[in-house]
Amino acid sequence: MDKKKIIKLAKKDFERAWVESGNLVKKSHPDKEYPRLKYEIGKSHILNDTIAMLREAYLRLGFSEAVNPLFIDKNDVYKQFGPEAPPAVLDRCFYLAGLPRPDIGIGVDKINYIKKLGKDINDEKIAKLQEVFRGYKKGYLDGDDLVLKVSEALEIDNEEGLSILEKVFPEIKDLMPIASNTTLRSHMTSGWFISLEKMVKKSKTPLKMFSIDRCFRREQKEDSSHLMTYHSASCVIVDDEVTLDMGGKAISEALLEYFGFSKFKFVPDEKKSKYYIPETQTEVYGYHPKLNEWVEIATFGLYSPQ
Amino acid sequence: MDKKKIIKLAKKDFERAWVESGNLVKKSHPDKEYPRLKYEIGKSHILNDTIAMLREAYLRLGFSEAVNPLFIDKNDVYKQFGPEAPPAVLDRCFYLAGLPRPDIGIGVDKINYIKKLGKDINDEKIAKLQEVFRGYKKGYLDGDDLVLKVSEALEIDNEEGLSILEKVFPEIKDLMPIASNTTLRSHMTSGWFISLEKMVKKSKTPLKMFSIDRCFRREQKEDSSHLMTYHSASCVIVDDEVTLDMGGKAISEALLEYFGFSKFKFVPDEKKSKYYIPETQTEVYGYHPKLNEWVEIATFGLYSPQ
Amino acid sequence: MDKKKIIKLAKKDFERAWVESGNLVKKSHPDKEYPRLKYEIGKSHILNDTIAMLREAYLRLGFSEAVNPLFIDKNDVYKQFGPEAPPAVLDRCFYLAGLPRPDIGIGVDKINYIKKLGKDINDEKIAKLQEVFRGYKKGYLDGDDLVLKVSEALEIDNEEGLSILEKVFPEIKDLMPIASNTTLRSHMTSGWFISLEKMVKKSKTPLKMFSIDRCFRREQKEDSSHLMTYHSASCVIVDDEVTLDMGGKAISEALLEYFGFSKFKFVPDEKKSKYYIPETQTEVYGYHPKLNEWVEIATFGLYSPQ
Amino acid sequence: MDKKKIIKLAKKDFERAWVESGNLVKKSHPDKEYPRLKYEIGKSHILNDTIAMLREAYLRLGFSEAVNPLFIDKNDVYKQFGPEAPPAVLDRCFYLAGLPRPDIGIGVDKINYIKKLGKDINDEKIAKLQEVFRGYKKGYLDGDDLVLKVSEALEIDNEEGLSILEKVFPEIKDLMPIASNTTLRSHMTSGWFISLEKMVKKSKTPLKMFSIDRCFRREQKEDSSHLMTYHSASCVIVDDEVTLDMGGKAISEALLEYFGFSKFKFVPDEKKSKYYIPETQTEVYGYHPKLNEWVEIATFGLYSPQ
Repeated sequence: MDKKKIIKLAKKDFERAWVESGNLVKKSHPDKEYPRLKYEIGKSHILNDTIAMLREAYLRLGFSEAVNPLFIDKNDVYKQFGPEAPPAVLDRCFYLAGLPRPDIGIGVDKINYIKKLGKDINDEKIAKLQEVFRGYKKGYLDGDDLVLKVSEALEIDNEEGLSILEKVFPEIKDLMPIASNTTLRSHMTSGWFISLEKMVKKSKTPLKMFSIDRCFRREQKEDSSHLMTYHSASCVIVDDEVTLDMGGKAISEALLEYFGFSKFKFVPDEKKSKYYIPETQTEVYGYHPKLNEWVEIATFGLYSPQ
Repeated sequence: MDKKKIIKLAKKDFERAWVESGNLVKKSHPDKEYPRLKYEIGKSHILNDTIAMLREAYLRLGFSEAVNPLFIDKNDVYKQFGPEAPPAVLDRCFYLAGLPRPDIGIGVDKINYIKKLGKDINDEKIAKLQEVFRGYKKGYLDGDDLVLKVSEALEIDNEEGLSILEKVFPEIKDLMPIASNTTLRSHMTSGWFISLEKMVKKSKTPLKMFSIDRCFRREQKEDSSHLMTYHSASCVIVDDEVTLDMGGKAISEALLEYFGFSKFKFVPDEKKSKYYIPETQTEVYGYHPKLNEWVEIATFGLYSPQ
Repeated sequence: MDKKKIIKLAKKDFERAWVESGNLVKKSHPDKEYPRLKYEIGKSHILNDTIAMLREAYLRLGFSEAVNPLFIDKNDVYKQFGPEAPPAVLDRCFYLAGLPRPDIGIGVDKINYIKKLGKDINDEKIAKLQEVFRGYKKGYLDGDDLVLKVSEALEIDNEEGLSILEKVFPEIKDLMPIASNTTLRSHMTSGWFISLEKMVKKSKTPLKMFSIDRCFRREQKEDSSHLMTYHSASCVIVDDEVTLDMGGKAISEALLEYFGFSKFKFVPDEKKSKYYIPETQTEVYGYHPKLNEWVEIATFGLYSPQ
Repeated sequence: MDKKKIIKLAKKDFERAWVESGNLVKKSHPDKEYPRLKYEIGKSHILNDTIAMLREAYLRLGFSEAVNPLFIDKNDVYKQFGPEAPPAVLDRCFYLAGLPRPDIGIGVDKINYIKKLGKDINDEKIAKLQEVFRGYKKGYLDGDDLVLKVSEALEIDNEEGLSILEKVFPEIKDLMPIASNTTLRSHMTSGWFISLEKMVKKSKTPLKMFSIDRCFRREQKEDSSHLMTYHSASCVIVDDEVTLDMGGKAISEALLEYFGFSKFKFVPDEKKSKYYIPETQTEVYGYHPKLNEWVEIATFGLYSPQ
């Protein structure tokens, strides 16, 4: 009794055709049987889910999204914190460092070493090799082309070129990174100060902007509330008159209500960051019904004219 | 001490400038004080939030979205249910009805009534008016243009025309709607059957489709689980071989895990809908930890070849 | 040369191990070869994508989401349109109709017919059957339990019961739907008027609400701009003072800018819907750069106090 | 004629009440007139919009989201690239550096300087101050508490303490950052190798994971295709058998179709990264109809067992 017969039968006797159709059902192959058979749905990560929710909340509050500088010159940190900067802030910042490009000379010993390794070498090849090393030093030659160019200069294949480089010119490898004056932003304010300087020149106030992005801290040790890299969700309002009530309390409340908080406490912050006007740095606590306690969730303040 | 002075002072004595900047803070106007000041964030409705989540879950499971017919001819219901259709299904369906367009004659009494209302009337105007009514009856004239055209025919303004229509031609108003053979879909299967007939002709199997949309039921009374209009979230898999394990159990599990369920029970459904092959209609129960009970969340089955 | 050997070799000669690892690559089975192998990503439907975008735009503008009544009593349509309602609006509305429940008597001829079909029948069974039909008529008995209950009364199986019902009691089947006074909303205003009446009693103004949902129109014929069911995206602002500039022009602009429009024209609407105050109904045109023409995209007005 | 009168009139004469209601409309205050009045909708940033789209595409393809390590020990880079690592990769990486904590002695000259600045000092205060500096050096004392503790030790206020620190102990300030062996990941593979080593131990294969996150490159100069920090969208499939067709071509196609590409070319990559098995590194080109050219959009390969 196959499908076609059943469809035909249904025209005469719907009920019987229905009963007969039960014979059509086939048994699954054991490998295709539930629960062995399982469909995996792509799972999102809670960190990015939270970022997506924060983003949505800011957008619904009328804030526009910015991407702020991540590389902060140490002098910009001084502008925020004054003489306190080194022990209080820069001490906790990561500075960026990088490998120098070595000045590689090709002395007699090097030439002999190459010969000893069985490679044919002559003045022309030496000149070409010298040129390659000079270009590398000067930055004309990309690092990932070095092996290729060395091999070409010596008229050997890449594998041999890499071997020569490794054995005869260890100065390529034995390099110590040198630190610069650039730091990774440790808090979003460092990024805002640079962005806002440009924005206020070309946009009309009021400006309402937000950014949710990575910051970096050289923590002595990491735990659940001290991470070497973490995401900061931060917003700014720029206007002729911004008050703590408008820009801080009301915004915090609206934002945190979106995440289910309903009771709030605003407490003057003991930590007195120099980029805020004195007495304006404020901690926001939300009541967490399950934990039955107040948790610190946010901080705000009025940026100092300095 | 204004902003500029502070910025100048900061260059000489950062710390003192910072302390002085505290004097810049102004008090908020009482109306702008928190908590009187409050920002309202646009709130989404839980119905559409749930629809959005379901949509996301289906898409992540690889189903594509369809929009199915909402108007179902009663004969299509017969095709699903056979002779049982009227009491078991059609009894619970809404049929669509509409007002007929009346055949309006302009007899002597009507003409006299118009005159009595102080409007000038002659044979030419009567002929024009007759033409308007005929066009309305035939469907050439839109209903919302009727007042305008009547007024033009009688060379009076719209307000007077509407008044004539209301008083002299009450047959426009005293109309009873007439029912058609078209019903509103009471369950998504009615829509799928029509859509799938077309899809299998032009697409290659396997097909995996879903739809989340309104259905309608003529409930005797409404309560939290009996609504005259509700949203059905429904999916279909079309393939040469589809089993209850693959198309039903594994899909139900993956979908409901997305909503936080982790324990499932599959129970043969006592209700034996004729559009499913016998013994395939299955109820899905999920364990609800807070309610501490099993709740029915879904149903599935294999569509009958009939 | 398998994986383990390569890993071991890599410690001695990284370069050679890398070259050797190339031998590990296996050829795909022809059925698993691209492009025969193809992953299908779940595709969303443009209708619901558009709805999702509109929803997002309203939420970002600070509107909250409502779900409005879909069933509108014809008297509520009269309240909006006055005497013009029947030809101008109700003519284009769908009324809801439903099957009546028949009063089924069991006369001698019916009894004889049952006997003739070979079923045993007696006074007790007749009484029970009468009770079933009465319960069905009164609405105590659900339509989908009718076959079951008839079969129990006659002490026969379901298949036989259905057959009896079909042959002996055709009045179950030969039913004509009867229209009610309930219509399906033809424009969102009908829903808003009912919702807002309740909302203004329990919420403080200003209220900013939106809804994106189905409406229904009994179009004479369907084409790309006349659909029997379509989705309306609609919003309302309720406040002591709402002006066309604030509630209409500025909102339309902000909303449509989200969809990429940048030039707008506001034109008084020739269609004068009675639910708007005279001279306030306004059409919104957006300039479409690709089509190089102005397209009508929205309408707004101030609701009449009536 | 106010609202109430109009509502009353409407019961007698709907049409006239409607016309009268036109007098209710008030003119907007010039400041509230369109287009001076403008609602700003929160605008999202194209970078994060693109990230959100990519995330959605991966999730719909059944990939789960991971957050990978950002800090990569230079030895982990050697494991990927072998002896080629320093010139080819590490040369382009940022190393992390940080300020050392100085060992501050309190000699006679320092004590005299403090006295000269008018601060009272004695052996007890010196001992306390020595203790503070020792705690700072050892890391017990946080940098942002240093000014406070120094002030307490000397029994002066914070402002004075900061001034002493700045003038008498410039070694706090004149610090050079020292580089570590930790780099910032320059490509997502560095993060995957560390994550996958753990994942394969605790999860069953197949694993399908993705991550969209920041990477860092020490570019010689920045332009539109060379950024010091950029976002990498990257995915991995881990299974006993993964082929280029399945894991590379088919996935690339499905993912890029989501972004509107429909024509693809797969070209063996000339750059031979050592973390891929030889001959498997492949560039993906998509045809861009507006630019009328093929653009490189992705790269894939099979990870080497090394």
